[in-house]
Amino acid sequence: MSVYTKVTEPQLASWLKAYSVGAPVELKGITSGIENTNYFVTTTHGRYVLTLFERLPAKDLPFYLGLMAHLARHGIPCPSPIADRRNRLLSALNGKPAALVTRLPGATITAPTAVHCAEVGAVLADMHVAAQSYPGSLENPRGPRWWREAAHEVLPFLDEPRRRLLESELEFQFRDRLRDLQRGPVHADLFRDNVLFDGGRIGGVIDFYFAGVDAWLFDVAVALNDWCVEADGALDRARADAFLGAYHAVRPFTAVERDAWPVMLRAAALRFWLSRLYDFHLPRPGELVHAHDPEHFRRILELRIRDRHDHPWVAA
Amino acid sequence: MSVYTKVTEPQLASWLKAYSVGAPVELKGITSGIENTNYFVTTTHGRYVLTLFERLPAKDLPFYLGLMAHLARHGIPCPSPIADRRNRLLSALNGKPAALVTRLPGATITAPTAVHCAEVGAVLADMHVAAQSYPGSLENPRGPRWWREAAHEVLPFLDEPRRRLLESELEFQFRDRLRDLQRGPVHADLFRDNVLFDGGRIGGVIDFYFAGVDAWLFDVAVALNDWCVEADGALDRARADAFLGAYHAVRPFTAVERDAWPVMLRAAALRFWLSRLYDFHLPRPGELVHAHDPEHFRRILELRIRDRHDHPWVAA
Repeated sequence: MSVYTKVTEPQLASWLKAYSVGAPVELKGITSGIENTNYFVTTTHGRYVLTLFERLPAKDLPFYLGLMAHLARHGIPCPSPIADRRNRLLSALNGKPAALVTRLPGATITAPTAVHCAEVGAVLADMHVAAQSYPGSLENPRGPRWWREAAHEVLPFLDEPRRRLLESELEFQFRDRLRDLQRGPVHADLFRDNVLFDGGRIGGVIDFYFAGVDAWLFDVAVALNDWCVEADGALDRARADAFLGAYHAVRPFTAVERDAWPVMLRAAALRFWLSRLYDFHLPRPGELVHAHDPEHFRRILELRIRDRHDHPWVAA
Repeated sequence: MSVYTKVTEPQLASWLKAYSVGAPVELKGITSGIENTNYFVTTTHGRYVLTLFERLPAKDLPFYLGLMAHLARHGIPCPSPIADRRNRLLSALNGKPAALVTRLPGATITAPTAVHCAEVGAVLADMHVAAQSYPGSLENPRGPRWWREAAHEVLPFLDEPRRRLLESELEFQFRDRLRDLQRGPVHADLFRDNVLFDGGRIGGVIDFYFAGVDAWLFDVAVALNDWCVEADGALDRARADAFLGAYHAVRPFTAVERDAWPVMLRAAALRFWLSRLYDFHLPRPGELVHAHDPEHFRRILELRIRDRHDHPWVAA
């Protein structure tokens, strides 16, 4: 489904001559992912992922690739973009912007335990701290400005209760926009399908193509709303404790962040409810098959609103 | 023998707080190597080598670390220096300049086949090409200038035939100093003990602490004089063909380089004969145990002089 741009073996071999990674041994399309075309590439020197960027704004690509390179340089297990002979991380293949990044070991897990959640929490904190010295800048493209635009477009499709929920939450979030939160480059999409586990350890954090500069706390809330929830969206106390405890051990929440935490859990739920509503009601051509059920994040948002006074683990 | 500076586990744990590599799990001294103190360090995120620089000039360390980072960024399998939270590749531990680099998989081999030699030749060419865009600069500290100084110091220890060989070869090399050779950052010490093989593939090229800017051809000659020789120093035609064929496939010799090749094989032999004479006759305190027999490279030099008109593989 998602190999939009075909790359042949001779095309790859020719393109790789501009790199120092040896000769190609294998080329295999990757069918997951919806924004880009991805191939596994094995060469005589190693294993890589080739990405052809189909839809992301070309001007934003250096931010993503530079961020990955920066994090890899700091020991974060993430794809490391490979520079070509002209020392560029971004080039072109078959008319598309293209990049070659290291392929990381491991596989995603669908049923994380508290131990997995602790690993993710620790790596997330390390990412935040390491990215502080990254000079690139890109406003989170799915930040509050986009919420308003997306809400405007999806509201006509919603029934009355959902419309009221969306409008009141937007009003709440904008009334209560949090100041003085620590900000920096964040992953912004650290779901279970973006972490590879390899023998119990994190082999790789992948897919940085929703990254941007935003509050660290937002990134934590996005991850927690996926890693530490039951099927119905309710937070699992043991996993949330493990996640936040490991995060705190590297980078403790500030007092302002502790106060903002319940609001941010709602903001993170709102952001994904909105994008799933958008993809569901306004799909791009050929994309319906990938649309997630928006209801999951509506339930999460309602649960976070209901439980807004009950977040004991923040004291951890 | 070569853990000169002791690092305790609490000292490591404290030092690692300035990095984003997780918490320490294991610390183990490495007994090989003579210039630096090295430890294997395992953390919750990965496997690393900690190096404390004991003798290298502090001003040269950024060149070495920057070169490794540059090559790793280009996909060369070499140690990748890890930046600390201040984004520095070099810091200090127990009063010594210190760096943390990724630990690579594999082990050295003592009896390389033609297949191994082809892998090394290909990676060496990739390193030369990838390093072209490295902006750092450091004259090869064991280049011609050093040959003269070292020769002056070791000549008094040599018998008459060896003195004549050394003097005449120096005269020949300086009379025939080669112009117009392609130059760039080179490893300059790519012996068998500096390449890790992992399941038949190169897992890592290590120990860049003799690197400097010199002729690419010199680097090839240094490697060939180790990888493709019999115990007596004679070149093994099959291995030399495999090495040079793989090098050429990535980066063909120029006409000037083909002409210079027999002279450069002698220069590479001379450089190691000199350094081994120096280490043997003028050892640093406590270092005698590491001294290699200088005679091995005297034999290689004499063989390369004898065979100077017989290098058919250069046409490959």
